[in-house]
Amino acid sequence: MTLAVYPGSFDPVTYGHIDVLRRAAEVFDRLVVAVLENPRKVPLLPSSERIELIRRSIASEAPALVDRVEIEAFAGLTVDFCRARGARFLVRGLRAISDFETEMLLAHNNRKLAPEIDSVFFMTALEYGYVSSSLAREIAQFGGDVTAMLPPPAVEALRRIFST
Amino acid sequence: MTLAVYPGSFDPVTYGHIDVLRRAAEVFDRLVVAVLENPRKVPLLPSSERIELIRRSIASEAPALVDRVEIEAFAGLTVDFCRARGARFLVRGLRAISDFETEMLLAHNNRKLAPEIDSVFFMTALEYGYVSSSLAREIAQFGGDVTAMLPPPAVEALRRIFST
Amino acid sequence: MTLAVYPGSFDPVTYGHIDVLRRAAEVFDRLVVAVLENPRKVPLLPSSERIELIRRSIASEAPALVDRVEIEAFAGLTVDFCRARGARFLVRGLRAISDFETEMLLAHNNRKLAPEIDSVFFMTALEYGYVSSSLAREIAQFGGDVTAMLPPPAVEALRRIFST
Amino acid sequence: MTLAVYPGSFDPVTYGHIDVLRRAAEVFDRLVVAVLENPRKVPLLPSSERIELIRRSIASEAPALVDRVEIEAFAGLTVDFCRARGARFLVRGLRAISDFETEMLLAHNNRKLAPEIDSVFFMTALEYGYVSSSLAREIAQFGGDVTAMLPPPAVEALRRIFST
Amino acid sequence: MTLAVYPGSFDPVTYGHIDVLRRAAEVFDRLVVAVLENPRKVPLLPSSERIELIRRSIASEAPALVDRVEIEAFAGLTVDFCRARGARFLVRGLRAISDFETEMLLAHNNRKLAPEIDSVFFMTALEYGYVSSSLAREIAQFGGDVTAMLPPPAVEALRRIFST
Amino acid sequence: MTLAVYPGSFDPVTYGHIDVLRRAAEVFDRLVVAVLENPRKVPLLPSSERIELIRRSIASEAPALVDRVEIEAFAGLTVDFCRARGARFLVRGLRAISDFETEMLLAHNNRKLAPEIDSVFFMTALEYGYVSSSLAREIAQFGGDVTAMLPPPAVEALRRIFST
Repeated sequence: MTLAVYPGSFDPVTYGHIDVLRRAAEVFDRLVVAVLENPRKVPLLPSSERIELIRRSIASEAPALVDRVEIEAFAGLTVDFCRARGARFLVRGLRAISDFETEMLLAHNNRKLAPEIDSVFFMTALEYGYVSSSLAREIAQFGGDVTAMLPPPAVEALRRIFST
Repeated sequence: MTLAVYPGSFDPVTYGHIDVLRRAAEVFDRLVVAVLENPRKVPLLPSSERIELIRRSIASEAPALVDRVEIEAFAGLTVDFCRARGARFLVRGLRAISDFETEMLLAHNNRKLAPEIDSVFFMTALEYGYVSSSLAREIAQFGGDVTAMLPPPAVEALRRIFST
Repeated sequence: MTLAVYPGSFDPVTYGHIDVLRRAAEVFDRLVVAVLENPRKVPLLPSSERIELIRRSIASEAPALVDRVEIEAFAGLTVDFCRARGARFLVRGLRAISDFETEMLLAHNNRKLAPEIDSVFFMTALEYGYVSSSLAREIAQFGGDVTAMLPPPAVEALRRIFST
Repeated sequence: MTLAVYPGSFDPVTYGHIDVLRRAAEVFDRLVVAVLENPRKVPLLPSSERIELIRRSIASEAPALVDRVEIEAFAGLTVDFCRARGARFLVRGLRAISDFETEMLLAHNNRKLAPEIDSVFFMTALEYGYVSSSLAREIAQFGGDVTAMLPPPAVEALRRIFST
Repeated sequence: MTLAVYPGSFDPVTYGHIDVLRRAAEVFDRLVVAVLENPRKVPLLPSSERIELIRRSIASEAPALVDRVEIEAFAGLTVDFCRARGARFLVRGLRAISDFETEMLLAHNNRKLAPEIDSVFFMTALEYGYVSSSLAREIAQFGGDVTAMLPPPAVEALRRIFST
Repeated sequence: MTLAVYPGSFDPVTYGHIDVLRRAAEVFDRLVVAVLENPRKVPLLPSSERIELIRRSIASEAPALVDRVEIEAFAGLTVDFCRARGARFLVRGLRAISDFETEMLLAHNNRKLAPEIDSVFFMTALEYGYVSSSLAREIAQFGGDVTAMLPPPAVEALRRIFST
């Protein structure tokens, strides 16, 4: 049985994330979505809500994955989380317009820290090539329409936050 | 009559901005320079002064454009501002050494949010390929010479701020 | 009246080209599609057929443009063709996954050769971000399906060539 | 059982290729190394010899993989080969210093041609980030030392060719 | 006698920095490592400690350089520091996976500010292509192993800070 | 005494090359311009004429360098030429709009082949950021003006070739 960790901030989860998750699930038997609690960055949403949004988005967008995906918060180094979970693979998405260099830097670092864990990259669909959590937050903040970027639970969460 | 919006922070206006403005004015009948009031970033100069510096810089550097360019502050989404003004085009500058990916990301987002508005890109002159407002602020802060990067009104404004 | 030249090999015309043409036609009054006859590269299709495919593709894909677009073969420097036609603008497409550096190099060269002519860049739609004439030729050569990349007249032309 | 195809020219096989193969074998149950016979490019080595070099290199460098890897020549589209073999995954290597854009372009094209086949990317080790078959051929041609780039069977093959 | 300045934050010094220093010392007679005191960024380590770590790291990693390298803190513009020291060269490192555009932007700016000072670039060894001070800080903060990235004095300094 | 080799095709020499040469001469005591005779690429100009154009261009553009620069043809590996000449440094130019990745690939290869030889990079002036020999040849072929790109001897040579 192959187990892979898909780490990120997911603040909030986007259709791009769901797309990567679906592809990774074709390759790995089980996936752990690892929601980073970064002590140095204040997220828009607490990790408990980010987890809940991922759970509900998988349920509605990719119900076939529900039984094969776990979602957990973590703090610290990604490779330490992988080791604790016994995962030997890290899943990362590559976007058409993405910061490829940052991904490479992280991957080489992770390999140095934990040579037994390998990064496996999936390419997000072209139509999500421009989607990111940070852009979605910025657009939602000004009342813009993010329904093409985010699954309904995430859309509602942003609406609730920014409508007050 | 074609109307285009040229959005940015202009904190402060540079020769690169004036260069793009001059090129865009060859293509579009009227231009609105839209000065962003970003609630999450404290600018060096208030929007009223940024507008005033653009106005005076156009008057001295490109007087032929004075009657065809308006300058306004805006908050919120750029595409919402375009719609409010009835503009169907967004002008963006591309520098020889620039973050092309960021521009693409923004442009695809804007297109998704407002398919009826198109981004049109102009290339800044090679000699301004290294000029940016943030570098100018950093250099001026340490008493460096920014006269090759900024029109005289912007040079004076930075001098006033950093000489105290 | 603004006149712009859209130069290229168009060997053959793709949906990406039609997309750029449509956007450019929103900005310029008239467009000349300039089909390059490059003495050092043997094209798949002779320029007369490339022109005919563009003509038929515009007629079927963007009929509103038929009266505002001319299509011509040219040899030599693009800027010389622009001057001969009295055009002051060069239209170029930027793809999500494109060789931005090559475009910049060409544009700066053209500006040096002819400072009175400016390059104006349009961004092809995300869904055509992967489309190119050379990839279409390669796929068609092996019997692959290029109907998502090329307008019907170009699809048929490649089919005819490679089916023998 | 998961089956993946690793396509390429392998003219000749490098340590970078072996590295990718080893990583991919951690994820997939079986791998087919697909050696491209490109009708438009004259290779240094015929496909039969390229296959033989891969076979002997796996035997010496990664003997544990011998039973799980097949090596075959193919012509035509990569996705057609995958379909013929019933493979749903394409393996590609990403080098620290690599043409990321070319990889993305190919991957999006392949996805359009065969949506049921997905590209999975592995990152070659940092120390092979500069290695490529074409550079190895160029160096060997001038009597340079390629033992750090190529497995012994490939080193000998180039030596034989260029020593005459 | 040629004198060059190698500016940076060195927060803390990495093996990548030592590598660049060693290469630059082959070319220039004397080197000044200039440790930036940036008024707008709170460093992890005060400049006095960053200087001390560089000094001890050179002593242990590259003792032959001790007599030819000075280490000093500076504030303000790099080119002003060079002028004050009478240095006509700025040394910069290029990493395999690095922000090349940022380096170019800085270098062109510096040249504009001080045409008599030239930037000279050295390439860090491939094995340090992923190493950076900021990544080292992040890893150390979570108890990760940074001994492959930093000389022993810097490793200990981070350990001391983050173990409390 | 430091000796550096500046290798290239110089087909023909450009102002960008002269610019790099001038900068390198500030750092190194002696320079050898090494003109590559590539058996697999037919040059526009034979190496003897390329050498003569460099010699005359240095004489007119940078006469102070005449006594410190040698110009020689070479075939084979650049590092072998360096070794034969006893040079420990390779000079390379970086253009604002350049193929940074190709440079890195070559440099890491050269370092692997000859660890005792180091590559030192100089940045060409912004105004030559778009200049290349191949673009100059292409423009000259169609009667375009290359006087801003090439020193007079190279301009005349292209004129002679393409006027027939």
